[in-house]
Amino acid sequence: MTLAPLTGVIPPVCTPLTADGEVDVPSLTRLVDHLVAGGVHGLFVLGSTSEAAYLPDRQRRLVVESVTAHVGGQLPVLAGAIDMTTPRVLDHVAAVTGADAVVVTAPFYARTHPAEIARHYRAVAAASPVPVIAYDLPVAVHTKLPADVVLELAADGVVAGLKDSSGDLAAFRQVVTGVRERRGITGFSVLTGSELIVDAALAIGADGTVPGLGNVDPHGYVRLDGLCRAGDWEAARAEQERLCALFGMVTVGDPARMGPNSSAIGAFKTALHLRGVIDSPTTAQPQIPLSPDEVEQVGKYLAAAGLL
Amino acid sequence: MTLAPLTGVIPPVCTPLTADGEVDVPSLTRLVDHLVAGGVHGLFVLGSTSEAAYLPDRQRRLVVESVTAHVGGQLPVLAGAIDMTTPRVLDHVAAVTGADAVVVTAPFYARTHPAEIARHYRAVAAASPVPVIAYDLPVAVHTKLPADVVLELAADGVVAGLKDSSGDLAAFRQVVTGVRERRGITGFSVLTGSELIVDAALAIGADGTVPGLGNVDPHGYVRLDGLCRAGDWEAARAEQERLCALFGMVTVGDPARMGPNSSAIGAFKTALHLRGVIDSPTTAQPQIPLSPDEVEQVGKYLAAAGLL
Amino acid sequence: MTLAPLTGVIPPVCTPLTADGEVDVPSLTRLVDHLVAGGVHGLFVLGSTSEAAYLPDRQRRLVVESVTAHVGGQLPVLAGAIDMTTPRVLDHVAAVTGADAVVVTAPFYARTHPAEIARHYRAVAAASPVPVIAYDLPVAVHTKLPADVVLELAADGVVAGLKDSSGDLAAFRQVVTGVRERRGITGFSVLTGSELIVDAALAIGADGTVPGLGNVDPHGYVRLDGLCRAGDWEAARAEQERLCALFGMVTVGDPARMGPNSSAIGAFKTALHLRGVIDSPTTAQPQIPLSPDEVEQVGKYLAAAGLL
Amino acid sequence: MTLAPLTGVIPPVCTPLTADGEVDVPSLTRLVDHLVAGGVHGLFVLGSTSEAAYLPDRQRRLVVESVTAHVGGQLPVLAGAIDMTTPRVLDHVAAVTGADAVVVTAPFYARTHPAEIARHYRAVAAASPVPVIAYDLPVAVHTKLPADVVLELAADGVVAGLKDSSGDLAAFRQVVTGVRERRGITGFSVLTGSELIVDAALAIGADGTVPGLGNVDPHGYVRLDGLCRAGDWEAARAEQERLCALFGMVTVGDPARMGPNSSAIGAFKTALHLRGVIDSPTTAQPQIPLSPDEVEQVGKYLAAAGLL
Repeated sequence: MTLAPLTGVIPPVCTPLTADGEVDVPSLTRLVDHLVAGGVHGLFVLGSTSEAAYLPDRQRRLVVESVTAHVGGQLPVLAGAIDMTTPRVLDHVAAVTGADAVVVTAPFYARTHPAEIARHYRAVAAASPVPVIAYDLPVAVHTKLPADVVLELAADGVVAGLKDSSGDLAAFRQVVTGVRERRGITGFSVLTGSELIVDAALAIGADGTVPGLGNVDPHGYVRLDGLCRAGDWEAARAEQERLCALFGMVTVGDPARMGPNSSAIGAFKTALHLRGVIDSPTTAQPQIPLSPDEVEQVGKYLAAAGLL
Repeated sequence: MTLAPLTGVIPPVCTPLTADGEVDVPSLTRLVDHLVAGGVHGLFVLGSTSEAAYLPDRQRRLVVESVTAHVGGQLPVLAGAIDMTTPRVLDHVAAVTGADAVVVTAPFYARTHPAEIARHYRAVAAASPVPVIAYDLPVAVHTKLPADVVLELAADGVVAGLKDSSGDLAAFRQVVTGVRERRGITGFSVLTGSELIVDAALAIGADGTVPGLGNVDPHGYVRLDGLCRAGDWEAARAEQERLCALFGMVTVGDPARMGPNSSAIGAFKTALHLRGVIDSPTTAQPQIPLSPDEVEQVGKYLAAAGLL
Repeated sequence: MTLAPLTGVIPPVCTPLTADGEVDVPSLTRLVDHLVAGGVHGLFVLGSTSEAAYLPDRQRRLVVESVTAHVGGQLPVLAGAIDMTTPRVLDHVAAVTGADAVVVTAPFYARTHPAEIARHYRAVAAASPVPVIAYDLPVAVHTKLPADVVLELAADGVVAGLKDSSGDLAAFRQVVTGVRERRGITGFSVLTGSELIVDAALAIGADGTVPGLGNVDPHGYVRLDGLCRAGDWEAARAEQERLCALFGMVTVGDPARMGPNSSAIGAFKTALHLRGVIDSPTTAQPQIPLSPDEVEQVGKYLAAAGLL
Repeated sequence: MTLAPLTGVIPPVCTPLTADGEVDVPSLTRLVDHLVAGGVHGLFVLGSTSEAAYLPDRQRRLVVESVTAHVGGQLPVLAGAIDMTTPRVLDHVAAVTGADAVVVTAPFYARTHPAEIARHYRAVAAASPVPVIAYDLPVAVHTKLPADVVLELAADGVVAGLKDSSGDLAAFRQVVTGVRERRGITGFSVLTGSELIVDAALAIGADGTVPGLGNVDPHGYVRLDGLCRAGDWEAARAEQERLCALFGMVTVGDPARMGPNSSAIGAFKTALHLRGVIDSPTTAQPQIPLSPDEVEQVGKYLAAAGLL
């Protein structure tokens, strides 16, 4: 059971919803086509940007089945299996069919310990039909995956990769260099979710990137990835800074009225709606929808980036 | 759809597991009998002490069905519906049958906002066949339920009670007095999960208590509750201090080897096993089992309290 | 070197400032007279409510000297010696003259460890001319003083008391009962800074209370203390609830415009100004002053409590 | 009042202490010579690595005077003015003589608000005889300096630079690009304290770096800086990775026995002692000294790096 090393741009795919909160499969497949046309190298469904935390099990299954059926093996599909603890994650892992790997966080809700985190990944990997990728997301999980735990699991073949959304590039580097230096670690993929410092992450040795904003501008992230691989760091930096400016859209939501998820996911979906990719910018409950003014601001970000 | 005001001792019922991790229904019903014989006034299944975060959906359903069938309406049964966001909680709520109320936290994993918390409870309550009790557990949810949000939801009849495990007695008091003072709030139950300061919580006006340690010593908590209601605060304090000493068992687990959940839940289940109530002290994955030495220490706590 | 056990109400004395930020000694001594007339049992200068964090060394010295000279031994005076680490605290301790005890937090700014906290208190106590009281204020210090560290230091005679402003009544109780049960701890004073649950803290065994709101309404806290000591818990609860309502003044400051310190300390000083005790409600830099509207709201709280 | 733009390597200078805790001036000047010989471009005294939080005022003054006198204007000297709030920082700023700039954090201990942070810097800058550099150190200050506040202060000429030790490279980039894009910001220096990702920080546009490990291996950081400036990113990455391996020394201290400061500062000082630069590895109270075993491990790190 191996996974070809992952490289390039693997966006966490937004989950388009109908106005009444059902998965909008036609919009979802259009979004996949938009990403594939943008040149992305893989897809990550049921991640945080996909609102996995908001999707009931039947919606999660529909998303994985729709996307894996649609792409038909053209490019790798990773599927999040996001839940609180080992037994619940095992249920999700068993239900995932067609994906090339599952992406799993440390336990959350329950307070946890590095030894329990390791035990968790070992149990999940033992039961999973596909390779497991560790997902480091302290903002949601409230624990940072320790680099030494990740490396120990990598050395033992328990996890096949890391998706790091911690924002802590120094800790990320520890995994990148550790993977290279430790005997017996092969085919391990180190991916960054830090979409504003992709150039820096690739420069220090990341294999690939998982940018939420890649939903809105896949061409930009693919271009950025290519420039980094070509060693054209000046042009890469300019492209990254352009994408950083575009990323400003995540702040359009009024913080007096909504949380950062409502604002960021609302902005991405609104942008996809304004670009004609998905039918509705609806976000899942209990997120607060953007106001007409806030929608207009998203449009301005797109216009400034030449994306409208 | 109303709920008779809850008072007295409503322990969060441990979920006995077999050695291979399945719900041990005979042990569970024995535990319920043990609690009922101890004089408790209600039962709370699928709370944090019940390892709800670790139970897959089918195990959760089995627990609720087994317990509600077994008690047959003798005393109220509350059922946790613990999940990350509104749509997922709605699925749990729809699956709960036989319970008198559901207990629901604020959204977690996703970063959230007071307006989103209110929206969450309104949506859950609109769909729930039974009353909804708000569950404040910042150590797990990483958000404190603001007192003004709870009171607004209470005034609008959205939530029928609060189970407060925040440890913040001053904030708890704000809800207690707010409920009394606000027009239009009737039949709202304010419950504390702070098992070490039950006397204080009842003294300031709590309606009832939800003590995890009540699994091990229900008679003690029922006695404590009675003393408080009788206004015998000196005797109540002595009984509470005895229970605080017994609670020391939650620290038996070596912190170098396991997290606080493994230690606390492991201690409660070990105590129930040593007392002959349940067949196995098994805790759910990825929790670390207590060592023989640690088990022995639990036994000493029981012996010191005259419970062996 | 001993300290008579502290009991009763020991308010943290506000530090009145002139409009240009100097210590207003006449207002300070009037405030002391107001507190003494209210019947308080001790005074705590240079605590957090005293804006100790904002006062340069010369102002700190002036406060201690003015207050100790003014009270002339009528009642005990505790003086905060608030700074980041041992060597800096030692300098403050050496400069305190006339106070009956110094009040010292764990190290802050630098990340710390229980062993370092213990070392800190041992070094401070070894050099201090007066007894040392441990100050637990996690909201400022970002470390909770562990109960076992406090009890170990108490047993060794290193600290003579605890001023607990953690808000965690269960942890506070651990110290209260630990002090009673451990051999060799004598004359140790356990004080709570949780001004909204004084009744509960005294009921579980606190020796005294350090209420910031006691600046505004010393008579109320003295009455509350007396009712608790007399065992009239119902009347105590009513008095505490009245004080909780008055405490609402700390929220008058607009959170979009200022932090909680600006609002709370601004409200206390404004109330003292409106009551004619101090000349100016000025708070230290960089706190934001209350607006005229916010001042008016403070007045309404006072009027509702019959204090205007 | 201007400051020439700061670039290159500006290490936070350790403060050598005698065995009894006094500033060891001869060792300090030898350390400065060691750094200057290593080719550094500036010196930062009284930063966190300098144990500023542990130094009483007279020791702080002695450090600044000794270093500025010794370097005699050869290279810029920045001096930390670390204290809790505006009035206390103002006292330190007034006492700093000879330094080219002061480095100031947001208020800490007191809970704070962006408006209060801005007010703080404005007041400090108005009174300071030398330019003010903002110091972002959330691990100590428990507030992150918001990028928009820094940019507003930069645009108004209030602060002349940023020393970022937040570890958050994406937020750092926001300041770097903001400084470039905003009209009216000139001569602002953006420095990173993230010593493990200097190559990445320089690649995205940082002006300079403030590496604690630069005390131990100034030549390495100067080499790294030069390689980055020459655009030789591959060689820079190799040099940075070598320094990351050397940095492993900060973990030699047993976490069961001491905190991270004791371990890291102990390791740096031990390394300087083993390299013959300073007379004693003594750290300030209440830090725990390294054990002989831990000292030996530091020696191994040095040997592996060819520094012994």
